[in-house]
Amino acid sequence: MRQDHLITATQLSRGDIEAVLDRAREVADEPAAFADRHAGRVLALCFFEPSTRTRMSFDSAAKRLGMDTVDMGDVDSSSVSKGESLSDTVRVIEGYADALVLRHPSEGAATLAAENVSVPVVNAGDGAGQHPSQTLLDLHTIRENHGLDDLTVGIMGDLKYGRTVHSLAAALTEFDANQHFVSPESLRLPRSVRFDLHETGAQVREHTDLEAVLGELDVLYVTRIQKERFPDENEYHRVAGEYRIDAETLDDAADDLTVMHPLPRVDEIAPDVDETEHARYFEQAHNGIPVRMALLDALLENAEAAEGVEADR
Amino acid sequence: MRQDHLITATQLSRGDIEAVLDRAREVADEPAAFADRHAGRVLALCFFEPSTRTRMSFDSAAKRLGMDTVDMGDVDSSSVSKGESLSDTVRVIEGYADALVLRHPSEGAATLAAENVSVPVVNAGDGAGQHPSQTLLDLHTIRENHGLDDLTVGIMGDLKYGRTVHSLAAALTEFDANQHFVSPESLRLPRSVRFDLHETGAQVREHTDLEAVLGELDVLYVTRIQKERFPDENEYHRVAGEYRIDAETLDDAADDLTVMHPLPRVDEIAPDVDETEHARYFEQAHNGIPVRMALLDALLENAEAAEGVEADR
Amino acid sequence: MRQDHLITATQLSRGDIEAVLDRAREVADEPAAFADRHAGRVLALCFFEPSTRTRMSFDSAAKRLGMDTVDMGDVDSSSVSKGESLSDTVRVIEGYADALVLRHPSEGAATLAAENVSVPVVNAGDGAGQHPSQTLLDLHTIRENHGLDDLTVGIMGDLKYGRTVHSLAAALTEFDANQHFVSPESLRLPRSVRFDLHETGAQVREHTDLEAVLGELDVLYVTRIQKERFPDENEYHRVAGEYRIDAETLDDAADDLTVMHPLPRVDEIAPDVDETEHARYFEQAHNGIPVRMALLDALLENAEAAEGVEADR
Repeated sequence: MRQDHLITATQLSRGDIEAVLDRAREVADEPAAFADRHAGRVLALCFFEPSTRTRMSFDSAAKRLGMDTVDMGDVDSSSVSKGESLSDTVRVIEGYADALVLRHPSEGAATLAAENVSVPVVNAGDGAGQHPSQTLLDLHTIRENHGLDDLTVGIMGDLKYGRTVHSLAAALTEFDANQHFVSPESLRLPRSVRFDLHETGAQVREHTDLEAVLGELDVLYVTRIQKERFPDENEYHRVAGEYRIDAETLDDAADDLTVMHPLPRVDEIAPDVDETEHARYFEQAHNGIPVRMALLDALLENAEAAEGVEADR
Repeated sequence: MRQDHLITATQLSRGDIEAVLDRAREVADEPAAFADRHAGRVLALCFFEPSTRTRMSFDSAAKRLGMDTVDMGDVDSSSVSKGESLSDTVRVIEGYADALVLRHPSEGAATLAAENVSVPVVNAGDGAGQHPSQTLLDLHTIRENHGLDDLTVGIMGDLKYGRTVHSLAAALTEFDANQHFVSPESLRLPRSVRFDLHETGAQVREHTDLEAVLGELDVLYVTRIQKERFPDENEYHRVAGEYRIDAETLDDAADDLTVMHPLPRVDEIAPDVDETEHARYFEQAHNGIPVRMALLDALLENAEAAEGVEADR
Repeated sequence: MRQDHLITATQLSRGDIEAVLDRAREVADEPAAFADRHAGRVLALCFFEPSTRTRMSFDSAAKRLGMDTVDMGDVDSSSVSKGESLSDTVRVIEGYADALVLRHPSEGAATLAAENVSVPVVNAGDGAGQHPSQTLLDLHTIRENHGLDDLTVGIMGDLKYGRTVHSLAAALTEFDANQHFVSPESLRLPRSVRFDLHETGAQVREHTDLEAVLGELDVLYVTRIQKERFPDENEYHRVAGEYRIDAETLDDAADDLTVMHPLPRVDEIAPDVDETEHARYFEQAHNGIPVRMALLDALLENAEAAEGVEADR
């Protein structure tokens, strides 16, 4: 990966992705070799929207590289509430840190931040936009279980909202995966996302029923259907019930089917699935550590190389 | 201590307790010897209820062992508010850390967490349940001032609510202490706690008046009487006034009486007590550091030993 | 600097200030030499009022000295909300840390804290009182751009409220600077501050118009005019518009004029100023790191020396 920042998954070529995932595997195999790699470096955690697991995961990843972190804290208590612009905020914070992780409610926020600072910026979610480190850890989980070639992947649940799904689907086209999208009519992939997938020549099919396609899948990626999307609560319960899986559902699946979920889950995956060999969603969450370590390591390495070049001039 | 987790004070034998307190004394005597002991390890702070001093104390203890910490932050902004189960939350977080400290409003939460993760869990308070590291630092303070043999301890204030008191009383029975409980009638020890103490053959007496027993005490443990417990504010003020001590109150006490309080205090101990030789409540709070360092050190040592055994298989 | 605590800028002599700023320059020149200087030491961040940049800046400064930090968190969730006194709170927290940074809404809070603990206390703002580390980083920025001799400084905006301005003005008298104060009539320097400045024999003039004095200035220090100060919104907009600068305003300034601002800014400085050579407000914010590193380093060095003396007795 030769990038200065990580803003979208689509900025990464297949080669870039594989380089990060190779490094993530190295990290997982020999964490001690990375434990002091960036000692004395500071990562700023700038979450303009609440986050538990993404924030904790970057925090832990940084510390396992020997870095320290400084946290912006809640937006309510920040200078933002006094009317400061995002570009001013990040230009101040870059003075406190060697890299920034940014989550922000507005699409494009990470791009704006990256244009205003000279340290690496990682987009940890910008509105309905991108959340590329999630996509990388999803791909890492798939790769560790099945490799990334000749894949058949099912993505189920709320396909309309949810940047996770759109970003993963886009990345999978780089690997020529067969993709099946399973959702109620009202939560289909947005037309624009479908269009972009077709443009790349991707193998995309849509279904309203998991049964039709379950047996073919290497990976089933389940997402949460949110109550707020339904004007009528009964309608929500009917739909949520149809797109819920349990251990019995998986009787018809291939033995080596991998079930994933970006978490938190509520009811979409019954607890009895946890006990099966299919369940990989906690492993997937845990993969956030080596993948984000690899990502930060690569970005800091690039930044240091760039500094070196400048210093030599 | 040969435990994997610390869930209740009652899981600890007299020998276990003494082993932790011995280690705490070593830590206090030679902190530098422990400064890098767990470098590279990460402790997750999971406080589902607000806490200042317990959280800061564990945070500082971890860092004085060379560890880093990652903090779950407020529950409002966490996945919990999206309906995630406690077991899912801790199963995700165990991937970010080498040990977990958990505070939760529900009794039994720490046990549930310990059953779901493979890293050590320390209970930092679960509802009306247990808060065992507080008990250990209380015992450490008593031991450093009086030893743990032939003790006469008075516990005063709100004995009805308050896990601190119940947990300390239970632990003191391991050391055959004479225990005097001083409270208004309406805030007596709950029947079930009295019953459990009697079952162990403990020396337990109850009083409504401190004067009757003050002269005999080695230790006076004062707790806060909370306004919320009283339907009538006048009644609260009357009662709180009666169970408040000041320097003059202590004229009738033994010269080496140790006054303790789990803090925060409001009015129960007048500031003029702070200047007397009896006051040990700040020392008691500070003992949180060596005791929690000793505790984390012991649990991590056990976890590493267990890993070693597994690796050898 | 031979002080135990940093409570006010006025406690510092010209020599003290220069010693800290010399050290800050050393830090900026060779940060690696300071990277492990206080390894194993813990700094407690006690912010009883929200703060983003001051808190993050101390947090980062501590970590760049090899220290760890523990954060008190929000006051709402702290023992304070149970009615604990400030002196109790800091007496507990001193047991968790080797130094304290304190922000508090009440004037005099830092002095009270310093009287109650035996570790160094840094005042990070106490009500309308002092915020001395801000003054030091302001002076550092001025010194790095112009030196501190023969200065002519203009301070513009809200001069009535705002401890930053009062504290800087007081410190500048130590260096015999010419000071011009530019503000609307309603936001003039308070009489008491004017009086104190005159007492020291300082060169102080007041203006309602920047134009009259701009050409003479080495430094223009702009502050935010807050809407809340004006009963009438139209009046606010009229005034704020008059004391706003843009690139064109600066056409009449000296080539080497340094424009500063404590940030966050809203509208007082137009974005087109950012592109000019005059803009130094981000550099000023970044100077928080070396200056606070120098400050913590000096205070910890003094504390260790004092301990050494005590140990030898």
